[in-house]
Amino acid sequence: MNAIKQAQIPAVTNGNKDTLFLGIDGGGSKCRAKILLPDGTSGFGMAGPANPMHSVEQTVTSILKSTQLALSGGGLSQTMMGQLVAGVGLAGVNLPDCYRAISEWRHPFKNLFVTTDLHIACLGAHQGEDGAVLIIGTGSSGFVSVNGWQLALGGHGFPHGDKGSGAWIGFEAYKRCLLALDGVGMRTTLTEELLIEFAACDAISLVEKIINAESRHFAKLAPLVFEAAGHGDIVAIEIIREGAAYLSALACRLMEHKPPRLSILGGLSQLMLPWLSHDIQSFISLPMEVPESGAIYFAQQSLGELQVVI
Amino acid sequence: MNAIKQAQIPAVTNGNKDTLFLGIDGGGSKCRAKILLPDGTSGFGMAGPANPMHSVEQTVTSILKSTQLALSGGGLSQTMMGQLVAGVGLAGVNLPDCYRAISEWRHPFKNLFVTTDLHIACLGAHQGEDGAVLIIGTGSSGFVSVNGWQLALGGHGFPHGDKGSGAWIGFEAYKRCLLALDGVGMRTTLTEELLIEFAACDAISLVEKIINAESRHFAKLAPLVFEAAGHGDIVAIEIIREGAAYLSALACRLMEHKPPRLSILGGLSQLMLPWLSHDIQSFISLPMEVPESGAIYFAQQSLGELQVVI
Repeated sequence: MNAIKQAQIPAVTNGNKDTLFLGIDGGGSKCRAKILLPDGTSGFGMAGPANPMHSVEQTVTSILKSTQLALSGGGLSQTMMGQLVAGVGLAGVNLPDCYRAISEWRHPFKNLFVTTDLHIACLGAHQGEDGAVLIIGTGSSGFVSVNGWQLALGGHGFPHGDKGSGAWIGFEAYKRCLLALDGVGMRTTLTEELLIEFAACDAISLVEKIINAESRHFAKLAPLVFEAAGHGDIVAIEIIREGAAYLSALACRLMEHKPPRLSILGGLSQLMLPWLSHDIQSFISLPMEVPESGAIYFAQQSLGELQVVI
Repeated sequence: MNAIKQAQIPAVTNGNKDTLFLGIDGGGSKCRAKILLPDGTSGFGMAGPANPMHSVEQTVTSILKSTQLALSGGGLSQTMMGQLVAGVGLAGVNLPDCYRAISEWRHPFKNLFVTTDLHIACLGAHQGEDGAVLIIGTGSSGFVSVNGWQLALGGHGFPHGDKGSGAWIGFEAYKRCLLALDGVGMRTTLTEELLIEFAACDAISLVEKIINAESRHFAKLAPLVFEAAGHGDIVAIEIIREGAAYLSALACRLMEHKPPRLSILGGLSQLMLPWLSHDIQSFISLPMEVPESGAIYFAQQSLGELQVVI
């Protein structure tokens, strides 16, 4: 099955000349679209949030909007929409209800293939080949794909999962700040800086500031924590070390499946890199392409499978 | 000021014969009312939730409903409502916005004195005298009142605060279960039991089960964790020990202010007691009265202050 599938995969740079491939990387704050043009160049588009866990309607709107922009950007007519073979990577579609909601969309494309944001990130990072990714941004998660077999780890969401992520780091720092204010935790430069950051003078005003705060609000604090850790702040170092230990353990679990490559991605990956275990650091290589390119690889592989089945 | 206030306090059992005192203990799941009758007996009433952080309207409704029941229970006419001097203890009124919302209520009582749920719990536990309380239920917090000076610690809410509480213990256990499923945490009897409890077979179904879960849902898991810890489950013991260390530290902070007594209250207090530090355990004494009685002490003290001021 895998051998057949591999044989059917057109390379992303010289795909079937009659087929226009669209790659969508949907995220919590933006949606990126890439259309691979027959001459090997690409058209790009970007739109607002596309997280079906928050809103399926907005996700669909953002996918369409970014695709329209990618068509324009590529010098193509909007009437070409119906000829696009779309690969779409979205958060949450590993949950059955969420996958169902997206699958039921009466989309305007020729074909629509949906998978997780992790899967397209991994396909992009390794140019459609086997590999693993460790994602460290607002959230955190791991993914490995080897011989047609895939495994996703972590990434269960905030605040119950996503350890070591920006949201987790910021939230831990915030909690340490509350403990410090109550006199049951250490007061350090970091806890003082956070009070300034929140413009709060005591625990009550600090709690008022974060009522209804979302994960991205906490993630914004993460660079402050890394900076404090770099200056030897003991509370910051404890937080980063705990997060890094988890991420290193997650990476070890991915490596057990012997992927040929491991890449780290996400807004905090470079800040976290030096805190990961040396074994993991030595194995990490740069991602080769972006997730929307991964979504195109996914569309090509899925179409190949479909053609084999037909 | 304090000496005058103390002199003005009528004892709860033989209050001013012309004044009817009402004590209200508002909580997240129910509202308890107690009316002290001229003959020294009491009328009791109970109604639904009274947490102004969730709904001021429902809080007001529950206060009125429980008061009506207490009037009936005490054999008093509903027309007596306007003669009641009410002491009301509510969560969240330490936050300025929440206090303002309740203060603006055009209540039907003769007087309304509002304070925190912690304050009335402390007044009840020590029969209106100085003391400290450590509350371990769905949430956790500490309060000390000495020589007219008061300090509240912890209790900042779930999931950012309330360490060592039922919600915190259940949530930690849940997170450890997710780590175990991802192979980056230990699998123990506890993590297996939680999967059965949630009727989940993997991380995805476990996450689906807790989307939108409230603190009380996690608090329900706490007895399971205590039981597992009692049987030597290493994950359960780690969680309980971390929570107990925080609660012991919180109690130490309360003891620094030299309260004559320290009581522990809340649904998990007896389960947590043996895990607290020996110093703290040796100082703990039973609460003498319930929080709604504390609310009556508060009404009496506040009326006394008011009369001095007038």
